[in-house]
Amino acid sequence: MKQKIQGPKGTRDFYPQDMAWRNYITDAWRKVSERNGFEQVDGPIFESLELYKVKSGQEIVSELFHFEDRGQRQLAIRPEFTPTLARMIASKANALTKPIKWFCTSNFCRAERPQRGRLREFWQWNVDLVGLDGPQADAEVIFTAIDLLRQLGLTPKDIKVKISHRITVKNILTKLNVPQEKMDQAFKLLDGRDKMSPEIFAQKAQELGLNKDNAQKFDDACAKTYSGDSLQDLCKAIGLNDIPQLSQLHQQLKNFDIAQWCEFDLGIVRGLAYYTGMVFEIHETQGAERALAGGGRYDQLIQMFGGPAIPACGFGMGDVVLGLVLQDKNLVPERIQTAPDFFVIATTDLGNEQLIPLVSKLRWAGRHARFSYKTTRNLGKLMKEASASGAAFAIILDDKIKEGILTLKDLVNSEQQECPLIDLIEKMGNRI
Amino acid sequence: MKQKIQGPKGTRDFYPQDMAWRNYITDAWRKVSERNGFEQVDGPIFESLELYKVKSGQEIVSELFHFEDRGQRQLAIRPEFTPTLARMIASKANALTKPIKWFCTSNFCRAERPQRGRLREFWQWNVDLVGLDGPQADAEVIFTAIDLLRQLGLTPKDIKVKISHRITVKNILTKLNVPQEKMDQAFKLLDGRDKMSPEIFAQKAQELGLNKDNAQKFDDACAKTYSGDSLQDLCKAIGLNDIPQLSQLHQQLKNFDIAQWCEFDLGIVRGLAYYTGMVFEIHETQGAERALAGGGRYDQLIQMFGGPAIPACGFGMGDVVLGLVLQDKNLVPERIQTAPDFFVIATTDLGNEQLIPLVSKLRWAGRHARFSYKTTRNLGKLMKEASASGAAFAIILDDKIKEGILTLKDLVNSEQQECPLIDLIEKMGNRI
Repeated sequence: MKQKIQGPKGTRDFYPQDMAWRNYITDAWRKVSERNGFEQVDGPIFESLELYKVKSGQEIVSELFHFEDRGQRQLAIRPEFTPTLARMIASKANALTKPIKWFCTSNFCRAERPQRGRLREFWQWNVDLVGLDGPQADAEVIFTAIDLLRQLGLTPKDIKVKISHRITVKNILTKLNVPQEKMDQAFKLLDGRDKMSPEIFAQKAQELGLNKDNAQKFDDACAKTYSGDSLQDLCKAIGLNDIPQLSQLHQQLKNFDIAQWCEFDLGIVRGLAYYTGMVFEIHETQGAERALAGGGRYDQLIQMFGGPAIPACGFGMGDVVLGLVLQDKNLVPERIQTAPDFFVIATTDLGNEQLIPLVSKLRWAGRHARFSYKTTRNLGKLMKEASASGAAFAIILDDKIKEGILTLKDLVNSEQQECPLIDLIEKMGNRI
Repeated sequence: MKQKIQGPKGTRDFYPQDMAWRNYITDAWRKVSERNGFEQVDGPIFESLELYKVKSGQEIVSELFHFEDRGQRQLAIRPEFTPTLARMIASKANALTKPIKWFCTSNFCRAERPQRGRLREFWQWNVDLVGLDGPQADAEVIFTAIDLLRQLGLTPKDIKVKISHRITVKNILTKLNVPQEKMDQAFKLLDGRDKMSPEIFAQKAQELGLNKDNAQKFDDACAKTYSGDSLQDLCKAIGLNDIPQLSQLHQQLKNFDIAQWCEFDLGIVRGLAYYTGMVFEIHETQGAERALAGGGRYDQLIQMFGGPAIPACGFGMGDVVLGLVLQDKNLVPERIQTAPDFFVIATTDLGNEQLIPLVSKLRWAGRHARFSYKTTRNLGKLMKEASASGAAFAIILDDKIKEGILTLKDLVNSEQQECPLIDLIEKMGNRI
């Protein structure tokens, strides 16, 4: 016997139960995207290596699975969708009706060390609303993410959308005397805040021009979260009269009836690469697992890829963390695999002669029909197999099939009736 | 402005219309697989390079996109599903209930020169029935392929399943005096028959031990196709009393009511790699485009991957040729993109205040609801946009919303009625 070859590190084999779970998630992504008016798109599983350097520079290369084709083209398996999205929009910008509302539910690969919640191959839901500026578009994107989580059984008690805004944070930093040229450094400090001691934070804040008092104010503002209705407290804490970006967004979140799912958290940065306005992350309320989703507004990205200046807002949500959170909260439905409409069994040889012809008719008619591959004619054994399949109905074929009669048994309420074969076939046009 | 980067050669960008078409095909694959009792599986997008050498040897490497990860593992993007299937079955062989009925609808990549019907990235439907021997299992696999083609509107006039059988061909060759040790060469000759002149074929046949008369018989038997009912003609042509493999399979094809879609064609070989019994290809009747699908019985394959000796039968069908055949035959449905249930418009500012709250309620309730992103309040312009969206209903919000009244317009029959907002929301539990 040959040695068995293993599947690659950090990837998954999807056996039927695993695949049903993946479909449960990706089907929900698709359904929720569509009811929110987004249209599905996709790009190739690999792209030019160059495409990934546009947004992330040379440093991204070590995180990619990259290779050369026979024409010496440098290619890489996609680690994310945004560069493909930007490329696709840039290449047909004038032909596309605005706003562009696109989603994708594809797989991506990253050559990083596998950890809980982070695998080398994962599926990711990307939702992007391109061509619209303003808080209503921001809120619609956030609504779509929440609509999905709610569809899968999560509530505002389970998860929280943590929202910040680049312009708000910049205004606060300006108010606290951070000079414009140190703004990027200040965002970097904010991004790393969770990973350093308060002392180090205070020291680094001082280097940016914040005096002790202002550094404290900044730390306070970032450490706390604020509901939309308590934005005044944030204003007071920081010494501003108003935070229009957040109050306008809050108004839109109320309009979409999702304010109770959201809170403002200036500690959310989402890296520095390309966000220009609102940014958000979705977390389990108690901080279990990694972030479920992250996104924001990126009004300059399409231009970076040779497209027009066009505002855009979107997010990504991976299948791995979402799956873990749903499992943690016992939100896995009992049966996620497809169950047959009919399980056809034959208890006599004569019945068996009609089994395949009936099964094939049922399938032609669009019904999910199964049968036993065992050679037994034992009713009890066969009925056991029918029940185990989860079928709605069992059809029993015996010698009465000579007169065109079969037995139809409802496996939910165990009621059974004799029924002419011809009637069953005619009924298949309707739901039985 | 930056230079635009192109998508990689031989791959496709799926804009919404393209993606809807891909979904039309892959959704049908899934639906038909499920109603035939197959369960979906998937493996990683890349595997050990070694896995692909098991079945295809070193020569496969040049056709693969392959690379090394940081741990110096040799990996390759999957060019086909069978090695993954065999690996997955081999690694859990004892735990899996037999028969194993699996399908997948995933993407695969081959580093070959793109041609009509052959791209560097394609989607492929794989259907495999593992753990069952015999003509009934063969017929069920063929039925599943035909069930899909019929589902998409094709008829026995459009396509033909061309079936051969390794054992039959071997028996015929033996009867025609080809020695056992030249059997592989004889299959190779048969496989290359279409690409050589009759003279060359005759000469090569002679080298295998066929005299002129027998070479002619062999050529005749392979050049013609036979319906199941004319298998006697084939017997006569070749000088055999019976061809049990084909006549038993024909009986099962009749049982599944698909005999009229099938014909026997001993010219079908499907390469030499691993088929052990029945082999088949599905072709457009007039020979347009490449083969739509191909497969057969491969009873020794799982063992090659370190698994148990277990019979198996399956096929693969790609999205590219299938798409071309459907397009050639005008079988593309008029509308394949998802249409909204509701398109909500506001013709007054007061109406507009209720627009987002209503849209979000409809979406929460599972309905696909869209609205206009234009700022106009012009009824005509907005209704035009509603109609263009393909929505079933338009909801018109104007000042009557003060009294909780909206207008619901059926966009199919143009009937409209005033309706309390509250009634609409209550009705959403049912189909409107």
